[in-house]
Amino acid sequence: MLLTIIYIVAITAEAMTGALSAGRRSMDWFGVMIIACVTALGGGSVRDVLLGHYPLTWVKHPEYLVLTCCAAFVTIIIAKWMRHLRNIFLALDALGLIGFTIIGCQIALEMGHGFVVCAVAGVLTGVSGGIIRDILCNDVPLVFRRELYASISFVAVIFYWLCRNWDLSLEITIVSTLVFGFSLRILAIYFGLEMPKFIYKEDDEQSASSKDAN
Amino acid sequence: MLLTIIYIVAITAEAMTGALSAGRRSMDWFGVMIIACVTALGGGSVRDVLLGHYPLTWVKHPEYLVLTCCAAFVTIIIAKWMRHLRNIFLALDALGLIGFTIIGCQIALEMGHGFVVCAVAGVLTGVSGGIIRDILCNDVPLVFRRELYASISFVAVIFYWLCRNWDLSLEITIVSTLVFGFSLRILAIYFGLEMPKFIYKEDDEQSASSKDAN
Amino acid sequence: MLLTIIYIVAITAEAMTGALSAGRRSMDWFGVMIIACVTALGGGSVRDVLLGHYPLTWVKHPEYLVLTCCAAFVTIIIAKWMRHLRNIFLALDALGLIGFTIIGCQIALEMGHGFVVCAVAGVLTGVSGGIIRDILCNDVPLVFRRELYASISFVAVIFYWLCRNWDLSLEITIVSTLVFGFSLRILAIYFGLEMPKFIYKEDDEQSASSKDAN
Repeated sequence: MLLTIIYIVAITAEAMTGALSAGRRSMDWFGVMIIACVTALGGGSVRDVLLGHYPLTWVKHPEYLVLTCCAAFVTIIIAKWMRHLRNIFLALDALGLIGFTIIGCQIALEMGHGFVVCAVAGVLTGVSGGIIRDILCNDVPLVFRRELYASISFVAVIFYWLCRNWDLSLEITIVSTLVFGFSLRILAIYFGLEMPKFIYKEDDEQSASSKDAN
Repeated sequence: MLLTIIYIVAITAEAMTGALSAGRRSMDWFGVMIIACVTALGGGSVRDVLLGHYPLTWVKHPEYLVLTCCAAFVTIIIAKWMRHLRNIFLALDALGLIGFTIIGCQIALEMGHGFVVCAVAGVLTGVSGGIIRDILCNDVPLVFRRELYASISFVAVIFYWLCRNWDLSLEITIVSTLVFGFSLRILAIYFGLEMPKFIYKEDDEQSASSKDAN
Repeated sequence: MLLTIIYIVAITAEAMTGALSAGRRSMDWFGVMIIACVTALGGGSVRDVLLGHYPLTWVKHPEYLVLTCCAAFVTIIIAKWMRHLRNIFLALDALGLIGFTIIGCQIALEMGHGFVVCAVAGVLTGVSGGIIRDILCNDVPLVFRRELYASISFVAVIFYWLCRNWDLSLEITIVSTLVFGFSLRILAIYFGLEMPKFIYKEDDEQSASSKDAN
């Protein structure tokens, strides 16, 4: 099954990003594995808990947990050479983002939800693993601040939804969404594309207290 | 239905507070909308997940998600004038706090829970959206540190519970809890009322290691 | 029932660690109680939500919520003398860690899960209350960085699993896991045992941007 292969590539890539984040915070090996598992499987878990879609993927297939732990361990070993693999790594991460988005969207569709809930499920699956990783490492989640990321996940959902409504087969829809979203993400990285930012500063005394009060 | 109107006002107000928080962290527009949705709908989602009350509100009524996104977008546009609207804003936020509390409490009651679980459900619904917002923006949640907020939510639950036990009609109970809790919150802001704080400092070497060990 | 006694000791000890953390951040009394409840009951709640094991413990037994609030209140009162009780406190915390681990593991076993899911359930129950506490107090969770903690929880799961497979009675299994895990934790604290750390630094420009991109 195409989706399963994409899923396995995606969780492996995300586990490795999680392990690197944990390494930046000098965590011990066990902490590294926990962060890797949360990053790889957290997005799907959040989606499943919110949609009431039990059992969760890793409860049904514990082998995925073992896989992410192995990926984390391999990352610890090869981290020294990681920076030379940066481009492969970014590509895997982009593939993971779109793969997770498609899977989340597809699961919501199968549960009979409409566009809005599918979009939320897709974006949640794509980005919330990384958000939990950043929270556990005590950062402001990067996903909200850097070049197009969550918004590409959202655009991929729209593309996927249109393809399904045009009665394209599941395989063609998946592959074309993957190619479309992946290209978009690579373009966003290459050209440093960003969403407009909303910058809100309060500079007088009254609004400082307003900050406390909100 | 009275509760629905209160709910809509509450999620709109909370979405706006979320958008402003995101703006303080210079997030991009998509991040602003995510934070707004989480702030507005996160409290109810946490309550529903913990109580096993499926489907979640926004899954059943995706239009509320659209509403919070619109509120976030409007906030981005009007943020420049926001500080002149501060009082209206604080009033809406107070209304939201009490409205969420009543809704959470009512849902737990309808599920057949007793006072303690109703109180938790009410306070969770009232304050946890704001807590998740602060975690995503990497702040210590303000709710634990400023003038009476969570505790007013708790007092509102007690008031609501007493009214229900005195066999007052649902409408009268809701309106009187709303008036009572809203007044209390406005008084707390106006007079800067605070709970006593628990300040625990460890100043010698031994207790510094105790900090590490706990 | 043996497990119930262990559970009560464990939630009391964890509520007190939570209250002390909140005190270090100068939270108000209500915040202290919320942090105490989350620390004591959060681990079990995360496990139950992820496994779909409803109703949650504190929903079924709201008296545990009352107990943790009382423990938090007592902590506020006796905090001044707390540092002289440090050793008792560390021992209780170690007992709590192993107790929670056993309970989480046992619940997953009763639901019919295999070793991997039981291990996750045990470790989650043991450590995630403390992780949520640290997130709410805006720290990098200590569990990932100090002497052996989560890994002892994992070793205790393996020990427990082996005992069950050797057909030892439930009581003997629980007591021997408790003694084994507790001794291990005390040894880890006494000798300052640590897991090897994974330290990943990026020191050139290219890898700095790689950090942004992951």
